[in-house]
Amino acid sequence: MKDLKVLFHVSDNEVWPKALLNITNFLKDVGQNGAEVEVVANAGAVMAYYPPEEKKEQLEQMAKLSHMGVKFTACRNALNAHSLDESQRPGFVEVVPGGITEVVKKQTEGFIYIKP
Amino acid sequence: MKDLKVLFHVSDNEVWPKALLNITNFLKDVGQNGAEVEVVANAGAVMAYYPPEEKKEQLEQMAKLSHMGVKFTACRNALNAHSLDESQRPGFVEVVPGGITEVVKKQTEGFIYIKP
Amino acid sequence: MKDLKVLFHVSDNEVWPKALLNITNFLKDVGQNGAEVEVVANAGAVMAYYPPEEKKEQLEQMAKLSHMGVKFTACRNALNAHSLDESQRPGFVEVVPGGITEVVKKQTEGFIYIKP
Repeated sequence: MKDLKVLFHVSDNEVWPKALLNITNFLKDVGQNGAEVEVVANAGAVMAYYPPEEKKEQLEQMAKLSHMGVKFTACRNALNAHSLDESQRPGFVEVVPGGITEVVKKQTEGFIYIKP
Repeated sequence: MKDLKVLFHVSDNEVWPKALLNITNFLKDVGQNGAEVEVVANAGAVMAYYPPEEKKEQLEQMAKLSHMGVKFTACRNALNAHSLDESQRPGFVEVVPGGITEVVKKQTEGFIYIKP
Repeated sequence: MKDLKVLFHVSDNEVWPKALLNITNFLKDVGQNGAEVEVVANAGAVMAYYPPEEKKEQLEQMAKLSHMGVKFTACRNALNAHSLDESQRPGFVEVVPGGITEVVKKQTEGFIYIKP
């Protein structure tokens, strides 16, 4: 399974624990360099990038995965809809103009789609 | 991203607001003629085609998207399971014999799959 | 639609009734030999393989689909996370080391992805 490209689509804020565990287990299986992994967060899922104190640990888990090469993106439409300030996002999060457009684009580039 | 074909699979009635926003934002990005878009509604999601008074606005939003070229389908199995009368459906909704079979068929035809 | 390969990804225990109905209806449409069908259960969905008395009927429904050729798998990571004993699983359930890795692998082999 070389040259794998995998996209995780997270659209619910509650799904993050499952999604991050999915990614962690997947990377254990294929190895850190075994796949290109991107997470597209849209809708309510973008809120996880601006966590309250008690959810900071989840953000640290994302940061760790990011250090392992996982790309985290946030949908700008969703950030705006939730009045979240793009400039205050965590440094490892990349903003994409539209989450769904990103999901479509990545699939046209050969990414495998997974909805955790 | 020309000649794009995108399928939105909606299987929960509660997911419609998110799904319709997804499609609206996506069409803003790629343009009304930038993609062929089909929505397959199965399971409880078909109920949205027969809305109570307070949810009529959502159906109007679907009708508007339909005017923009988005194809809305309903799974006949799901209509029957929910005792919904096919002949009373909104005019813009096309009935397909099986929602999942439609999702599979469309993917074999090159449609990109998205679960909102 | 010959030589079809379809993967159903079930990651919530509550989604099983919908998923099993999806598969049943799909097989009615394409015929028992019309498609290769695999179900990958991960996260909380693996609990359905160890049902309490009142949910035994659902397991029987799975067994019946299994007799029709549907392959049911369970993610080992998820079994361990839920302290479920692999050796006590139903005979028709195959354990895969990682559910997400299986979902990815199958898609690289041409399986169509569906999230019920």
